[in-house]
Amino acid sequence: MDWGTELWDQYDIIEKHTQSGLELVEKYVKFVKERTEIEQNYAKQLRNLSKKYNPKRSGKDEPECRLSSYQSFVDILNEMNDYAGQRELIAENMMMNICIDLTKYLQELKQERKTYLLDAKKAQQNLESTYKQLDSSKKRFEREWREAERAAQYAEKTDQDINATKADVEKAKQQAHMRAHVAEECKNDYAAQLQKYNKEKNQFYFSDMPLIFNKLQDLDERRVRKVAQGYILFSDTEKHVMPIIGKCLEGITKAGTNVDEKNDSLIVIEQNKSGFERPGDVEFEDYSQGINRASSDSSLGTPKGPMDLLGKNRNKNFWLFSKKSKLSTSTLPPFSTPPVPSPANGPNSPKFGRDPLSYCLKEINKTVKPRISSFRTLRRSKFTPDRIMPTVTEDFAHLPPEQRRKRFATETRGHLQRAAKGSRSE
Amino acid sequence: MDWGTELWDQYDIIEKHTQSGLELVEKYVKFVKERTEIEQNYAKQLRNLSKKYNPKRSGKDEPECRLSSYQSFVDILNEMNDYAGQRELIAENMMMNICIDLTKYLQELKQERKTYLLDAKKAQQNLESTYKQLDSSKKRFEREWREAERAAQYAEKTDQDINATKADVEKAKQQAHMRAHVAEECKNDYAAQLQKYNKEKNQFYFSDMPLIFNKLQDLDERRVRKVAQGYILFSDTEKHVMPIIGKCLEGITKAGTNVDEKNDSLIVIEQNKSGFERPGDVEFEDYSQGINRASSDSSLGTPKGPMDLLGKNRNKNFWLFSKKSKLSTSTLPPFSTPPVPSPANGPNSPKFGRDPLSYCLKEINKTVKPRISSFRTLRRSKFTPDRIMPTVTEDFAHLPPEQRRKRFATETRGHLQRAAKGSRSE
Repeated sequence: MDWGTELWDQYDIIEKHTQSGLELVEKYVKFVKERTEIEQNYAKQLRNLSKKYNPKRSGKDEPECRLSSYQSFVDILNEMNDYAGQRELIAENMMMNICIDLTKYLQELKQERKTYLLDAKKAQQNLESTYKQLDSSKKRFEREWREAERAAQYAEKTDQDINATKADVEKAKQQAHMRAHVAEECKNDYAAQLQKYNKEKNQFYFSDMPLIFNKLQDLDERRVRKVAQGYILFSDTEKHVMPIIGKCLEGITKAGTNVDEKNDSLIVIEQNKSGFERPGDVEFEDYSQGINRASSDSSLGTPKGPMDLLGKNRNKNFWLFSKKSKLSTSTLPPFSTPPVPSPANGPNSPKFGRDPLSYCLKEINKTVKPRISSFRTLRRSKFTPDRIMPTVTEDFAHLPPEQRRKRFATETRGHLQRAAKGSRSE
Repeated sequence: MDWGTELWDQYDIIEKHTQSGLELVEKYVKFVKERTEIEQNYAKQLRNLSKKYNPKRSGKDEPECRLSSYQSFVDILNEMNDYAGQRELIAENMMMNICIDLTKYLQELKQERKTYLLDAKKAQQNLESTYKQLDSSKKRFEREWREAERAAQYAEKTDQDINATKADVEKAKQQAHMRAHVAEECKNDYAAQLQKYNKEKNQFYFSDMPLIFNKLQDLDERRVRKVAQGYILFSDTEKHVMPIIGKCLEGITKAGTNVDEKNDSLIVIEQNKSGFERPGDVEFEDYSQGINRASSDSSLGTPKGPMDLLGKNRNKNFWLFSKKSKLSTSTLPPFSTPPVPSPANGPNSPKFGRDPLSYCLKEINKTVKPRISSFRTLRRSKFTPDRIMPTVTEDFAHLPPEQRRKRFATETRGHLQRAAKGSRSE
């Protein structure tokens, strides 16, 4: 069963069907194109979302960066960015392998179809032309035959007319004979034209047009095959990236399982531990034993404790030391008294940036506190800057590793800066 | 290692860290919410795309609906609509299981954290209050001791003054003694206050605050655990629908492989085959054998053929018949002559709607054509409507099944309509 045989008289249908077939391909291409736009847009939104929440801009030195709950969120954002990349890949591959490829193929099919339809038109025009010849040939035969009959009737009438001369009769008979001859010739011509037309018509209906229709059928079937491939590609494109998308999702799951709350707590300790001991008992200050209050300060020579621990006024009263520095001449060993331009006081350390002096004092205090009682006897002796140096600059072994690293870095930076300043001022 | 012990003096850090931890959860919830919006938007666009290209509106009776290339496209659109449904499900589940759940949990954590911070504040205030008592007690001791010293010096001075009376000396000594006694009492009070303060301070630093800090650590760890679960849910939600999305993609592939171009070609034949034979040779019309051309029509009593086959003027010249009906008295058997109100001419058949008469004639012609020669002798006999009826109304066996079905349906509808009209007019 083919169109050439079965639909021999359905040119319109075939023309219309092949046309709407091509339109289906166009429609499908348009559909896929719109899908790629949706996919691109989706990917772009995911990318923007990933960028928006990624704290890259604030640098890697944020203390939170080391915490797994933050790190995993960043991992998720990165995985989602990769995910978006896969959606973009889907869009690109759909565009390349379906839209562009089908559009190209469509142009070829359109051209091919046009050629076939033109062939059909030509065949029809040829047959029409032969038909017109046949028609005119037939009309001439009819006309000539009528003339011949009239001439024959006239000849018969003349023959029976008693008034007619022999010459008249002969002339009429000759005329009739001639007319009959012409009519016969026209009949032969008509017969020949009819034979020619029938041959061409046969050729038209049984060979030329069926061939064209079959070619159009073949074209249509190729078109259907091609669009079917396009359909399969529509899912294959996505199936192709599914494993990678699966990996992105696995990556997110892994980021989630990587979160370690216990370790995060330890990191917070490591990053923020001061290393100080908790304050011991406040000692009794016995005025009756002859304490000399040089200062007019009426407050106790003890840490204000809780007030500073909750840190509302930490800038004003740095915990443990803001008072002590005032009271130092009476209650603390000389090491911890006034600020000295020691290397450790150069650039501020990241952690105690606001008050390097206090930080310095803190360090000293931490080391010397347990020995305060043994230093009691020295409490009125004079301050000597040299004596403070070794404690501050040489050793941070008492600090947790994170802070020790920072302190060394700070000190080194300080040395370098001073060295730079020194060489400039020289 | 816990915060209570290691970060005893890092209240600010703990407050800030737990705060930024909660902010991370908030940030994550916001992030997921934006993702669900993207997902919803994506799903909506896919749904709209599916709707836009789905030819449902034009009804299922379109002849193209039966073609696999069209049907598969519709299948793909439906699969994509299901796909969109799965993306919506992702959005909904993310919203329910991550955003709403985490937000609720977050509120609880915030409340809990607030309570702990309040507890810390209270503990601090208590200790401050005790400290103030200690301070004032200490100041009084200092003041009284100075008075006592002064009184003692005065008593001593009076004792050595040669002008002083015994009474003066006694009075000064008594005064000094009294002052010394008061100072001693203040000293005892100060000592008691100091003991109380040191006890409370110890409780504060070694028990109350560490407990609160450890509670905050526990809260923070629960927060981290919860957000980690939220991270895992982020991919689990999508993983959950992956198999169904996979099925949608499989459905699309299946739609693609379902396309059968050969069968589509056959459907086009079945839907459009006229069932007519291709025209045979045009017969010779021999005027010389006495054809009586009743009509003034000068054209041949044959189909115009190719002109009509390509159908540009099909409305005007319905192929094979527009001319024949005019020529019928001379070239066709009486069955095929003028239009008769036969049942088949009732409602128009879908296929030959424009010209039911022509269609009818076509039918008849198809049946009788091979027998034309045997009917030759009848060609001048009168037309009798009754003789046409059986051919038209009784049997469509010569038609392809699709058309036979339509023809029967048409005829039945015609009968019913006429019956309805008849019963109404009675």
